[in-house]
Amino acid sequence: MAVYTDVDDSALEAFLSHYNIGSPVALKGIAEGVENSNFLLETTEGRFILTLYEKRVNPADLPFFMGVLDHLTKSGFPAPQPVKDRNGESLQTLNNRPAAIVTFLMGMSPRKPNVSQCRQIGEAMANMHLALETAELSRPNSLSLDVWPALFEGREAVAAQLAPNLDQLIAGDLERLQDQWPNPDDLPLGIIHADLFPDNAFFLGADFSGVIDFYFACTDMLAYDVAILLNAWCFEGRGEFNMTKGQALLSGYNSVRSFTDTELHALPALIHGAAMRFFLTRLVDWTDTPAGALVKPKNPLEYAEKLGFHRLAHKVEDYGFRA
Amino acid sequence: MAVYTDVDDSALEAFLSHYNIGSPVALKGIAEGVENSNFLLETTEGRFILTLYEKRVNPADLPFFMGVLDHLTKSGFPAPQPVKDRNGESLQTLNNRPAAIVTFLMGMSPRKPNVSQCRQIGEAMANMHLALETAELSRPNSLSLDVWPALFEGREAVAAQLAPNLDQLIAGDLERLQDQWPNPDDLPLGIIHADLFPDNAFFLGADFSGVIDFYFACTDMLAYDVAILLNAWCFEGRGEFNMTKGQALLSGYNSVRSFTDTELHALPALIHGAAMRFFLTRLVDWTDTPAGALVKPKNPLEYAEKLGFHRLAHKVEDYGFRA
Repeated sequence: MAVYTDVDDSALEAFLSHYNIGSPVALKGIAEGVENSNFLLETTEGRFILTLYEKRVNPADLPFFMGVLDHLTKSGFPAPQPVKDRNGESLQTLNNRPAAIVTFLMGMSPRKPNVSQCRQIGEAMANMHLALETAELSRPNSLSLDVWPALFEGREAVAAQLAPNLDQLIAGDLERLQDQWPNPDDLPLGIIHADLFPDNAFFLGADFSGVIDFYFACTDMLAYDVAILLNAWCFEGRGEFNMTKGQALLSGYNSVRSFTDTELHALPALIHGAAMRFFLTRLVDWTDTPAGALVKPKNPLEYAEKLGFHRLAHKVEDYGFRA
Repeated sequence: MAVYTDVDDSALEAFLSHYNIGSPVALKGIAEGVENSNFLLETTEGRFILTLYEKRVNPADLPFFMGVLDHLTKSGFPAPQPVKDRNGESLQTLNNRPAAIVTFLMGMSPRKPNVSQCRQIGEAMANMHLALETAELSRPNSLSLDVWPALFEGREAVAAQLAPNLDQLIAGDLERLQDQWPNPDDLPLGIIHADLFPDNAFFLGADFSGVIDFYFACTDMLAYDVAILLNAWCFEGRGEFNMTKGQALLSGYNSVRSFTDTELHALPALIHGAAMRFFLTRLVDWTDTPAGALVKPKNPLEYAEKLGFHRLAHKVEDYGFRA
């Protein structure tokens, strides 16, 4: 949930004068995303999302994010489309913050994705990866394997308070991941979403309708994006992996873009690592979020429980993959 | 800003099955109101606001609030209209909370109302009072004169920290208000909004388009509602009263419903008292809100500064009224 910065009616009028999208008729701060201030903006010409980028987003990355959205929507992939101002720019300034307007995407996010939704999101991610193959854009992943030890350092005691021996288990995981991590040069690389949780995916009725929130997008191994997806969509309860959902998600992806053998071999480590990445950033937020913050940090324990499953899984078949 | 309770897609589907308003296509938690969880709900049939009533609202009051909205919208006054379920009920239960769906109202709230907007909101309030004359509904004002001393008690030291001698000034105000307060039987009574701040009013372009958030509505002196309005719309900077706006607001109201002589005589005390009511509830929120709360309390100082103006004003002409 967000909305950190308020936008008043006169500032909005001035801002919209840079665009060809009519006059404002409604503006509602919406609880979407935790990084930025988002508003549902309705004008005489349609509905849009207005985003003000807060300090957690590096302004230098914004042209990349806008470029990804532009490329996806021009390829026909359902994502928010940046609206250009009269000068053809998709980035502006509002209340001293970088700001952008994108089109409004319809759909509802599933709270507990079902098997069909897991299959569809697998297919959708493969389509997204294929659509982005021709995008001449790149951004390094700032949350990859090499930064994980530093995220854990100094937070061992907090981890130990969350669950018995969790500090030692994480230290062991980090060593194992350094050993087992694939060489990125051996795997297909491309632009990945890197945060495709169910609340960033929309469905209309039973059907996939779009993906939002590309603010972690970066260049990395495509299979790592699938690894994040599997962690986010196929677990239930307390660290219980639903094999049927895993099978649906992996075969959905594979039906659109076939995994290479190297990817299939690397997936267990990537899935384990993806869980580690979210465990660690949640652990950081958990320890660093001040008491009065507007955003409640997510409990890292959910991902600690997923790590417990991954410690015992070794083959992609353990996640439901069937060739 | 709010959204305390999340609503998941399957709970929403079940909830909407009680209504004849189509299937959901979008649901966005919105930062509107501080008392409840509000969502912008789009269905295949239109757009609505879904509200879940949190603990600050007494469920026993909800039929009154819904009745007021029903009466207003049937009279043609622009307010959210409660949507009835298949059984003709406008109140339901969702996530163990009372919940209601109302129609979506277009418009933008002014941050710094201009003179024309002050005139229009004065006219609109008079129209609202007239429309509610025929409503057979009542609810006592739970924040009236008699409870103010209890709100102040024990918070004198906090007041003194806000501004020099503020504790003594407030104690003096409370005495003066007890002396000068009109006898409610002498003034026109009716249903008042009691919280018509600019963020509860909408304008489309230059024109008034509606009023929302009736959750403080109650039965009281109509002129007291005008007193709240004047405090909320006609001050600028630090306790500076804009006489031109005051004149526009009062004459706007008077052009639709003429003030009685008793009302004109009572208005200075009512305006002073209205500022006291908001000063005190903000003082309570300021001292009682826990550090980790999602809602940041408003600084009571803004209303302390308005009280400073009211201490020196004695006639309705001091607020710009011209007969």
